[in-house]
Amino acid sequence: MGKYIFGVDIGGTSSKIGIFDSEGNLLEKWEISTETNNQGRNVLKNAATSLKEKMQKRDITENEVIGIGIGLPGTKDKEGGFDCPNLNWRHVMAESEMCDLMGGIRVEALNDANAAALGEMWKGSAKGYRDVVMVTIGTGVGGGIILGGQLLNGVHGGAGEIGCIVVNSQEAEAIGSGSKGCLEQYASATGLVNMTRRRLERDHDPSVLDNMEMMTAKHIFDAGKSGDKLALEMISVFSRILGKGLAVVSCTIDPEIYVIGGGVSKAGEMLVTAIRKAFLEDVPDHCRMTKFVSASLGNDAGMYGAVYAVMESIG
Amino acid sequence: MGKYIFGVDIGGTSSKIGIFDSEGNLLEKWEISTETNNQGRNVLKNAATSLKEKMQKRDITENEVIGIGIGLPGTKDKEGGFDCPNLNWRHVMAESEMCDLMGGIRVEALNDANAAALGEMWKGSAKGYRDVVMVTIGTGVGGGIILGGQLLNGVHGGAGEIGCIVVNSQEAEAIGSGSKGCLEQYASATGLVNMTRRRLERDHDPSVLDNMEMMTAKHIFDAGKSGDKLALEMISVFSRILGKGLAVVSCTIDPEIYVIGGGVSKAGEMLVTAIRKAFLEDVPDHCRMTKFVSASLGNDAGMYGAVYAVMESIG
Repeated sequence: MGKYIFGVDIGGTSSKIGIFDSEGNLLEKWEISTETNNQGRNVLKNAATSLKEKMQKRDITENEVIGIGIGLPGTKDKEGGFDCPNLNWRHVMAESEMCDLMGGIRVEALNDANAAALGEMWKGSAKGYRDVVMVTIGTGVGGGIILGGQLLNGVHGGAGEIGCIVVNSQEAEAIGSGSKGCLEQYASATGLVNMTRRRLERDHDPSVLDNMEMMTAKHIFDAGKSGDKLALEMISVFSRILGKGLAVVSCTIDPEIYVIGGGVSKAGEMLVTAIRKAFLEDVPDHCRMTKFVSASLGNDAGMYGAVYAVMESIG
Repeated sequence: MGKYIFGVDIGGTSSKIGIFDSEGNLLEKWEISTETNNQGRNVLKNAATSLKEKMQKRDITENEVIGIGIGLPGTKDKEGGFDCPNLNWRHVMAESEMCDLMGGIRVEALNDANAAALGEMWKGSAKGYRDVVMVTIGTGVGGGIILGGQLLNGVHGGAGEIGCIVVNSQEAEAIGSGSKGCLEQYASATGLVNMTRRRLERDHDPSVLDNMEMMTAKHIFDAGKSGDKLALEMISVFSRILGKGLAVVSCTIDPEIYVIGGGVSKAGEMLVTAIRKAFLEDVPDHCRMTKFVSASLGNDAGMYGAVYAVMESIG
């Protein structure tokens, strides 16, 4: 009988690994760097090596491991192949590869935003809810949708791609992915900084952000908290775009709760309140009860969710 | 053992009733008018009376009826109460009322757009698909979402409210429901006529539609088919709004197929092709395979879907 489950959350720069007991309690966690060169061929190998070392140290045998859950920054196609641009992966069969590397231990792999959504539902801010939308606002904007306790993948693996919702069809500039005017172009950390830079170039209103060389989203939120007018204006635009995007999501699937996560969500209640305000302007009355909360598991959400996926798969 | 299932699709003006055999074949159908005065108290009574008359004529006993499915123009709350503005209903327990009226026969009631979606999946254009979005374009715009073969209701009964998606936050005029700038305001039959009237008032371009007193959506589509430039322009605006709305739906749930139904869908391939074109401009690559078809059951879709809901409920 297995005693342990491993959770792995692979990111473009570093990967988080955790050992959980069979009840889902985190026993130990650590990070390794992600090696994306060489078509990302070493990504899973390095994670496997790190896990095996830890197993040896803790005297854990393969038979004692119930399974390994892996969150990956990309989409899973119908055959189970993962496309992960940030890892330089094209159609990588992550589950069978990791299973081979780990001597046949059961592996469940899933999209990282989906994993984070499961994690927050299981042990985080959305505990007890079954219809959850998790929005991860960082460099980009990701989303994970859970309906009736089950992850929604979408027929082409594209469900929950909230960042791809086109909110401005007049946009002239394209972002990295080639798309124009999508929500992610404005309502991500990168988007907020770009909008603020453009706003400052257009009109030199007094602001602590003016002439700041290495401006980050955190600078803008901090400036907003200390009352900087221009920063507050930009945060308001940012929140409106998110709130209006989520209003559309509610017209489509009408979930019970939105969990706002990712680096930018550290701005906290200020952000969640502003998003909800804009959301309420656009939704039918029955959505007035829809809840908004900040994520509570931080960077561990994906790891937790990957472990939950393993537990679900064994029933 | 039951031999028959009844399907009822209640509309604001008339209601369709059908008798089906236990395999789901339609044996006979007819219409009755819907009596919405007196808080719509006679709506179900009249349907029940009509059904009982037919049972007597055909020598059908209550024991031979497997169940009755009812499509209703409104939302079902958690307690099973229906709010249907067009019937003047507030929190009507349609299932138990109809069950009492029909001497204890099993009743399944559901939203009419959801019923139409089920109907098209079961016997119509989406036969064989399991992830279906049905869009009903008539006086308003309704939607029904099926994921993995199961209807999505939404936590507050509001899933699939595609007509409520706000597409223009600058809109000054409100529609009947009080909302401003929602998809339905432009991309319904009413919306198309209003947009065309405004366009003609603004700018008297030569068009067969100019000075037409009782303009309908059909006039506009007919004018478009015969090459009227202004009509084609308005149809293009109309289709773009729909296509862009459905692009957002695909970013959220990524379905396999869209079924375009309702009165306006009689415009046929011309409309479906134009909607798909606008859709493709806004979606990520993986959605390029998403299918678009015209509904094929016409006004019978809701009746079929209501019968299917009964069959599903008995397993």
